[in-house]
Amino acid sequence: MKNILVAQSGGPSAAINATITGVIDAGIESDQIEHVYGALNGIKGVLNENLVMLDKVCASKEKRDLLAITPAAALGSCRWKLEDPKKNVKEFEEIIRILRKNNIGYFVYTGGNDSMDTVYKLSVYCKEHGIEDIKIMGAPKTIDNDLGETDHSPGFGSAAKFIATAFTEIACDCFVYDVPSVTIVEVMGRNAGWLTASAALARNGKRRVPQLIYLCEKVFDEERFIDDVNKALEVDQNVIVAVSEGVKDASGNYVGEETKSGKEDAFGHKYLSGIGKYLEGLVGEKIGCKVRSVELNILQRCAGYMLSETDIIESRNLGAYAAISAIRGESGKMSAIERVSNDPYQVKIKLADLSKIANFEKTVPEEWITEDGKDIKEELIEYLKPLIRGEVNIPYENGVPKHFIL
Amino acid sequence: MKNILVAQSGGPSAAINATITGVIDAGIESDQIEHVYGALNGIKGVLNENLVMLDKVCASKEKRDLLAITPAAALGSCRWKLEDPKKNVKEFEEIIRILRKNNIGYFVYTGGNDSMDTVYKLSVYCKEHGIEDIKIMGAPKTIDNDLGETDHSPGFGSAAKFIATAFTEIACDCFVYDVPSVTIVEVMGRNAGWLTASAALARNGKRRVPQLIYLCEKVFDEERFIDDVNKALEVDQNVIVAVSEGVKDASGNYVGEETKSGKEDAFGHKYLSGIGKYLEGLVGEKIGCKVRSVELNILQRCAGYMLSETDIIESRNLGAYAAISAIRGESGKMSAIERVSNDPYQVKIKLADLSKIANFEKTVPEEWITEDGKDIKEELIEYLKPLIRGEVNIPYENGVPKHFIL
Repeated sequence: MKNILVAQSGGPSAAINATITGVIDAGIESDQIEHVYGALNGIKGVLNENLVMLDKVCASKEKRDLLAITPAAALGSCRWKLEDPKKNVKEFEEIIRILRKNNIGYFVYTGGNDSMDTVYKLSVYCKEHGIEDIKIMGAPKTIDNDLGETDHSPGFGSAAKFIATAFTEIACDCFVYDVPSVTIVEVMGRNAGWLTASAALARNGKRRVPQLIYLCEKVFDEERFIDDVNKALEVDQNVIVAVSEGVKDASGNYVGEETKSGKEDAFGHKYLSGIGKYLEGLVGEKIGCKVRSVELNILQRCAGYMLSETDIIESRNLGAYAAISAIRGESGKMSAIERVSNDPYQVKIKLADLSKIANFEKTVPEEWITEDGKDIKEELIEYLKPLIRGEVNIPYENGVPKHFIL
Repeated sequence: MKNILVAQSGGPSAAINATITGVIDAGIESDQIEHVYGALNGIKGVLNENLVMLDKVCASKEKRDLLAITPAAALGSCRWKLEDPKKNVKEFEEIIRILRKNNIGYFVYTGGNDSMDTVYKLSVYCKEHGIEDIKIMGAPKTIDNDLGETDHSPGFGSAAKFIATAFTEIACDCFVYDVPSVTIVEVMGRNAGWLTASAALARNGKRRVPQLIYLCEKVFDEERFIDDVNKALEVDQNVIVAVSEGVKDASGNYVGEETKSGKEDAFGHKYLSGIGKYLEGLVGEKIGCKVRSVELNILQRCAGYMLSETDIIESRNLGAYAAISAIRGESGKMSAIERVSNDPYQVKIKLADLSKIANFEKTVPEEWITEDGKDIKEELIEYLKPLIRGEVNIPYENGVPKHFIL
């Protein structure tokens, strides 16, 4: 009997704990597993031998169900990139030593591109050194939805649901006054516009907001933007704009970068305000109507009261599948989603090749963005729709959501 | 048989539509009422005779229940202050003419301090001119909770629930990395710190966050703040700070006002960033650890998926009570809440005198704030606790909340 180890890495999401829960489920159910360990703060927790026995901590299904719907990363996370083993082999030797010392035969690491790079390097190291008693698997996670080889990534659906919902609420708020107004909402995403695109899911039969959507995949032109807003104001009194934090100009520089970060404040610090505030200034200057900006900020990734049921179920299954695959002898792969059909929505879980995933960013295809660059096409909306479906019942205590805290 | 008219004014909230629904309920149920009218965009809708027949639009209980949980102001709002009738009597004459023309015998206006000023002026005008066929009533609304003569105000409980929840989620997010960090969360409130105080409801047996709470009622001292943060970092690796947007220094100026608004950007516009960004810069400069700021922004007042059941039930009752009181012959008063007991929580609805309410701001009592000004006292927490209790089932359509749209 061997032990299985799980760890989390990269930025928090509302679904990463569901994936951990899937690993614990699979470990508890398997007759080949003695204990399920969790490493605190990702690969750093492995290196420091900072482990907790999750099959004990989460022995009851009730505890696991609570963990599955708790946002962020209950085991903690890290941003730690393993060096090239050809340059520094010590970290790799140390990881293997600690895993063997704790009788760990299976290691599931969940995270985004960087984390999959860690998994890939580790699995290659094991292969090249004939290490066959330790199986290394990845499980996907990123609200940015930019992982390759999987139809979509755990955490994205819940973040998209939060964003779509926020836009419906902001619309309710914007439409109360009978004066022309522009509201610019800044959405997370430096290189991939998937989250910004999901603002379109706020549109319904009665209100088509946001009227304008700018993804970071398209060159952003300030003059054309002002023209778009002016035209939208001719149709609607209240215009709502969704914009990726990472939109860039024709030279590839972040829009308004000079104003955003070039100036220094009273302490000599550079200004950190984002694209929303910058475009707010631009609209104020060029159009002169009532204008405000909203930065959705970290609630996008940690709003645990706004979970997509589809996302949470899939995330848990992906964790379980990675664990079961490792126990069956697989290594160096990542559990992934294949969309079998869109209507009705059906997926199957498969294994994907890590070499194709590590350090690759999947962006929104050009053909899913309108040519004028101010909206997205129906195909993208159809792709997004099923991912935010279903709600999860959240337990409350004294009026606030109850969370799993280690 | 007379008609009853209802209108909304001031900033949106998540519960103001519940109050409107209460008026519609009462109007439909009363055998003395023929129709329930709604004026679009507050008193401006009365002046422009822009009316909708709400007993028709919301004839079904299903429609009214949906209206009651829709955020913002479904009838639209305005910021329109009636002039002193001694200076300009025309608006008053016009309002009375339009009400009489539409056979309106009862007018319920819901809103905050400014709106209650409108109600008060109108009722005084009616009294002084012997107008007895029109009864004027107010119903309270303000997320700021700064209305006098009522224990608390509709909309506050839901906003407080959103804020407390956001702090629990932000805590989950902050605790994932094992490096010291400070997160500053800016909460709405220029003169009253009730909303900022409600961040304390995020505290539970396992996590006492936010560790620091600064209300705008106390003088804010930058040096003491840095000292507080340093001390908090000695106890906890991750420190979360709740701060009212309106904190002021000893001279009564907004903290960081010079940096916040004195500098001009590329367009010659003054910088609009708030206290959160300012304190982020201050911590970066003086302490130098990882620091970020979050502005909760307008979701505080329009997050309809985060409703306090207590708030929604009370808000609807307050609307109904104002309407019923008007039909019974009352005028010039506001429906209000009296807390009969705190544990168990019990309230009764009463009428309050508008002369004491109009243009008065109820702030957090000095004795409910700790002497060192960095926290609130247990009495305030006990006051707040019942107001966020209970959750409301929200109907979803295609993964996003369904709203009532006129």
